[in-house]
Amino acid sequence: MSGDSQLRLGVLGVGRIGSMHVDLIANRTEGGTVTGVFDVHAAGARAVAERFGVTAFDSAEALIASDDVDAVAICTSTDTHVDLIVAAAEAGKAIFCEKPISLDLAEVDRGLAAVEAAGVPLHIGFNRRFDPGHRAVRDAVADGTVGDLRQIAITSRDPAPPPIGYIERSGGIFCDMTIHDFDMARYVAGSEVTEVFAKGWISVDQAIGDAGDYDTVTAMLTHENGVVTTIDNCRQSSYGYDQRVEAFGSSGAAISENHRDHYALTLTAEGGRSALVPNFFLERYIPSYVNQWNEFITAVTSGAPTPISGADGRAPLVMGLAAGRSVAEGRPVATTEID
Amino acid sequence: MSGDSQLRLGVLGVGRIGSMHVDLIANRTEGGTVTGVFDVHAAGARAVAERFGVTAFDSAEALIASDDVDAVAICTSTDTHVDLIVAAAEAGKAIFCEKPISLDLAEVDRGLAAVEAAGVPLHIGFNRRFDPGHRAVRDAVADGTVGDLRQIAITSRDPAPPPIGYIERSGGIFCDMTIHDFDMARYVAGSEVTEVFAKGWISVDQAIGDAGDYDTVTAMLTHENGVVTTIDNCRQSSYGYDQRVEAFGSSGAAISENHRDHYALTLTAEGGRSALVPNFFLERYIPSYVNQWNEFITAVTSGAPTPISGADGRAPLVMGLAAGRSVAEGRPVATTEID
Amino acid sequence: MSGDSQLRLGVLGVGRIGSMHVDLIANRTEGGTVTGVFDVHAAGARAVAERFGVTAFDSAEALIASDDVDAVAICTSTDTHVDLIVAAAEAGKAIFCEKPISLDLAEVDRGLAAVEAAGVPLHIGFNRRFDPGHRAVRDAVADGTVGDLRQIAITSRDPAPPPIGYIERSGGIFCDMTIHDFDMARYVAGSEVTEVFAKGWISVDQAIGDAGDYDTVTAMLTHENGVVTTIDNCRQSSYGYDQRVEAFGSSGAAISENHRDHYALTLTAEGGRSALVPNFFLERYIPSYVNQWNEFITAVTSGAPTPISGADGRAPLVMGLAAGRSVAEGRPVATTEID
Amino acid sequence: MSGDSQLRLGVLGVGRIGSMHVDLIANRTEGGTVTGVFDVHAAGARAVAERFGVTAFDSAEALIASDDVDAVAICTSTDTHVDLIVAAAEAGKAIFCEKPISLDLAEVDRGLAAVEAAGVPLHIGFNRRFDPGHRAVRDAVADGTVGDLRQIAITSRDPAPPPIGYIERSGGIFCDMTIHDFDMARYVAGSEVTEVFAKGWISVDQAIGDAGDYDTVTAMLTHENGVVTTIDNCRQSSYGYDQRVEAFGSSGAAISENHRDHYALTLTAEGGRSALVPNFFLERYIPSYVNQWNEFITAVTSGAPTPISGADGRAPLVMGLAAGRSVAEGRPVATTEID
Repeated sequence: MSGDSQLRLGVLGVGRIGSMHVDLIANRTEGGTVTGVFDVHAAGARAVAERFGVTAFDSAEALIASDDVDAVAICTSTDTHVDLIVAAAEAGKAIFCEKPISLDLAEVDRGLAAVEAAGVPLHIGFNRRFDPGHRAVRDAVADGTVGDLRQIAITSRDPAPPPIGYIERSGGIFCDMTIHDFDMARYVAGSEVTEVFAKGWISVDQAIGDAGDYDTVTAMLTHENGVVTTIDNCRQSSYGYDQRVEAFGSSGAAISENHRDHYALTLTAEGGRSALVPNFFLERYIPSYVNQWNEFITAVTSGAPTPISGADGRAPLVMGLAAGRSVAEGRPVATTEID
Repeated sequence: MSGDSQLRLGVLGVGRIGSMHVDLIANRTEGGTVTGVFDVHAAGARAVAERFGVTAFDSAEALIASDDVDAVAICTSTDTHVDLIVAAAEAGKAIFCEKPISLDLAEVDRGLAAVEAAGVPLHIGFNRRFDPGHRAVRDAVADGTVGDLRQIAITSRDPAPPPIGYIERSGGIFCDMTIHDFDMARYVAGSEVTEVFAKGWISVDQAIGDAGDYDTVTAMLTHENGVVTTIDNCRQSSYGYDQRVEAFGSSGAAISENHRDHYALTLTAEGGRSALVPNFFLERYIPSYVNQWNEFITAVTSGAPTPISGADGRAPLVMGLAAGRSVAEGRPVATTEID
Repeated sequence: MSGDSQLRLGVLGVGRIGSMHVDLIANRTEGGTVTGVFDVHAAGARAVAERFGVTAFDSAEALIASDDVDAVAICTSTDTHVDLIVAAAEAGKAIFCEKPISLDLAEVDRGLAAVEAAGVPLHIGFNRRFDPGHRAVRDAVADGTVGDLRQIAITSRDPAPPPIGYIERSGGIFCDMTIHDFDMARYVAGSEVTEVFAKGWISVDQAIGDAGDYDTVTAMLTHENGVVTTIDNCRQSSYGYDQRVEAFGSSGAAISENHRDHYALTLTAEGGRSALVPNFFLERYIPSYVNQWNEFITAVTSGAPTPISGADGRAPLVMGLAAGRSVAEGRPVATTEID
Repeated sequence: MSGDSQLRLGVLGVGRIGSMHVDLIANRTEGGTVTGVFDVHAAGARAVAERFGVTAFDSAEALIASDDVDAVAICTSTDTHVDLIVAAAEAGKAIFCEKPISLDLAEVDRGLAAVEAAGVPLHIGFNRRFDPGHRAVRDAVADGTVGDLRQIAITSRDPAPPPIGYIERSGGIFCDMTIHDFDMARYVAGSEVTEVFAKGWISVDQAIGDAGDYDTVTAMLTHENGVVTTIDNCRQSSYGYDQRVEAFGSSGAAISENHRDHYALTLTAEGGRSALVPNFFLERYIPSYVNQWNEFITAVTSGAPTPISGADGRAPLVMGLAAGRSVAEGRPVATTEID
């Protein structure tokens, strides 16, 4: 990377998530700056480039090769991640890659091999680990506050399902949505998952079922250390983006509760009324994204390991594939069956 | 008192509060038993006596004189308190007296003098001191958790005003209702009040104003130790019996929040819905009454001072009289002006 | 039953639970009265009888046969329940029986057959259905507030394990402790459970494992209507008796939260501090027991069906047996495999 | 203003608050853009100008006169506000002015007269009105949810006092800090204040007293419509920036509670632990500043009245002066005595 004191980032893919990252790096983080963007939709890339005063590159290759780019943020569609990881690794650039790395384990392994060969930093964007509330739960496990961990419960519900077109290319709910919770389970437990039992069904929109996916899933995970995790997911929640994590152990419990749009309570003869849960990730998780960028930038510039490794990105995919098989076959599936 | 291991109580006045006390002593407390009751409404006394299997006495004098009575609980109308205190003191009986002792300071002093002369225990029934939440606030002050105390805020609102007939004989809202909060201020602050500034007005029912009283009051108290307390009172609250106490100091704050009828939360597209605040003292303060009886009984049987002394019963009356004068004259009134 | 306006109850078994019931019927409910008790520990029965002024019978048979007993409450050890149910049914008495009916399905069926033959009312004591918070969750499902139900989550943790002697005779955690949650799942979902997948392990005390039981379990239930329920149980919780129920559907969620010993919050430079969760069922569920008695008494005296039928008592036992087999065989078990 | 679709703002004073405003206008709001800045500390202005890519003007006059400036944001020291308001008004620019307008009522009136003569929009920066929680309280009053308003309670405590140098130029706590709460009282009540009774004292730092100020105050306000407001203020709070507002009326109450740094709860044998209250205004009120800019920009560009008028800026100063006199003279002071 350059001798410049700022880590210079090039952002590949500036759709909803990618342009959010550009904004956050430019305005909300310390130590990083965006120097260029690329998107297959050239007009979108130009608009973002103009708004933030950065270069719109003509190709991903040109951005990756640029001397003004120390690190690349891969925010393109999932099927392009591994090629871009390989290219960036070969160019010696630090890499931030959105989840999932790929929907194909062999492809994931190809990407991770290239990263290892090049010795470049790689971080997978499981942003929820950086949420202060969820992190407080993990910390209460890690620092012994909850004692010997026994059970974890994760609830994660989106406000509304994505378009069917998105569903069709998503790899299925387990690899697209539950993958965040699979990561959270490993993060909180500090232990790998050995078995997955899952139920998946349609309760929101039959079109999702017609696309071969589920919109509602419940999963039960067994960790190597004996801890059992339950996960409740749904693609639709009337009251907002339900995001909760709890851990229970021999000395206590830690519970990361939902936020609210505000904290005013109205009391009348009908009882109490309070605000909605924040609608979606932009309303709920901006601080987690900001923290993630700051920790990624600090790690890369200081030479420390990135917070979330390639192996951390791979394990939840194995769990997602195991979950899919569990539903299909109606039985618990060992992760070793997948891997 | 008798050599019996149970403190034998005679209850004078078995209306709503008195019969509650009979029930609590009989069924919910340790170390005490009710042996007799008296009420000017003889039928009411007989009904209570029959229900609890105790003696209905023909007169207060007979109850007080009975060898089966170690202590009397005075739950009659306020204007009879002092005569009964004097009679019980002269009979050498321990005394539990509902608040207020009297609406007349000279009468209070006559009662307290009789108690002092007789050397009997006297306790004034400011039950809220025994509520676990409010007590936790006081304890956080007393044990140094909040540091040097600076400000206290007390909110106390009844669900609905009492009948006008009650209002007319009540001595006014400051001596009838706010008196609980005046006591709470002294209890939490651990310091006497030197000045009262109050506003009283009608916002609930003009008939209360026609009876010469206020139904809504706000008061600001200055304590000897410099702490300032605010009190918000109202005779009507649509959402239940609003009972909150908070203390703020150099190291922190302690806040006793309202309870709810239950703790289920419903979340829909309209936001959160929760339960009402418990309706009134029977729903909110039974544990405080039970604790009060247990502590009174323990004090009397062990010879320790009662939790709330005659002087503790007198001070809030002074504050109530000062508050009334403050509203009438539109100025802060020193408690020394009353006393 | 007698023409008397009070339902006269005889209580069989006056250990911890039975004597609590005597107290509640005598002092906290309307329409019922205790006329007699029996216990194999005669001294214990006599003490309770004396305290509450009721008859201590010499045998269960004598109590059941007494003309002063309209209904019997069976609070004895589980292995005696069915014989007593049969005897009471044959005597034409209404029956309240603590859970579980029996640990043996054939025995359960023998008891239910006797009840059906006699046409007497039978109620099984799953008291948690009468908790106002949990009931608010069920009501939010039943009245459509949460819309089409999708997922249920139940958390239930005891403060500390019972003695090993109790564990040994308990039938195992699924039939002794989780059975409450199995009942709650049916109650909230309004739908039978068709499949159980469970994990059970030791994380509290190896002696429980040596006794052939688990102390910590997580279960996942599939209901006939497609709803999936997760249950987290543990025999030990440092912070009190963790009792939570939540339901999620197309229009919202309803969440019954833990209570606290009180509702004072302390804020200092170390953050907020709040009170413990109530320690155990005596601190948490007295209102549910009171409501249960009132509803049982009303049902029996009015001739309406009891709130919790014999079939309601049988179904959770099937689930408990399925859960045990699921852990043993490491696979989901259909309830039809048991039944 | 220009035909440009963006409102072009020049920011006068780019210290802590001013540079925050530049950042928010540049990055978090819609419809506005910063075109220039000025500060008496030229180096500071240049740094901000460079960071945000805007012009650093050599003088306030030059900024005000610039054709690239449609509106000025006055974020300089209080004693310069009125001259800048007059200059901006004479230049026909829309004006956003931080609170207080001035510490001198005659000066305020000179500024307001200039604004009126010029017919330019003026907004006074009482940002807390735009906090979603506090606004929900006001809305619950305005839309009738709380019914006929009776009492308001406002708590506002800073984490730590400002430097003594700041205190000395602040005009005193009532005009510097409590002024926000005076504004909030008017905002929530929708009614002017006619009388102020206040206590002010030193409980944090004697140096503040030596500077002629108080660090802790409690005030009681009477509104024209009969509502009574209490305000608790302190310059130091160990647990963060305590910001609460509540309103009580005939139909209910609305309570804007403190936020927390996060919403994780830890439960152990010591009870519950939760996070701190956000430390100060940057952690608590950014959304209110963003909302304020959006509403100011919309008002100016659409020709609608600004959300907070010059008269709204003047009234709390009268209340602050009345509060000071009330403490000095130990009596309630009518606002007509000041004005």
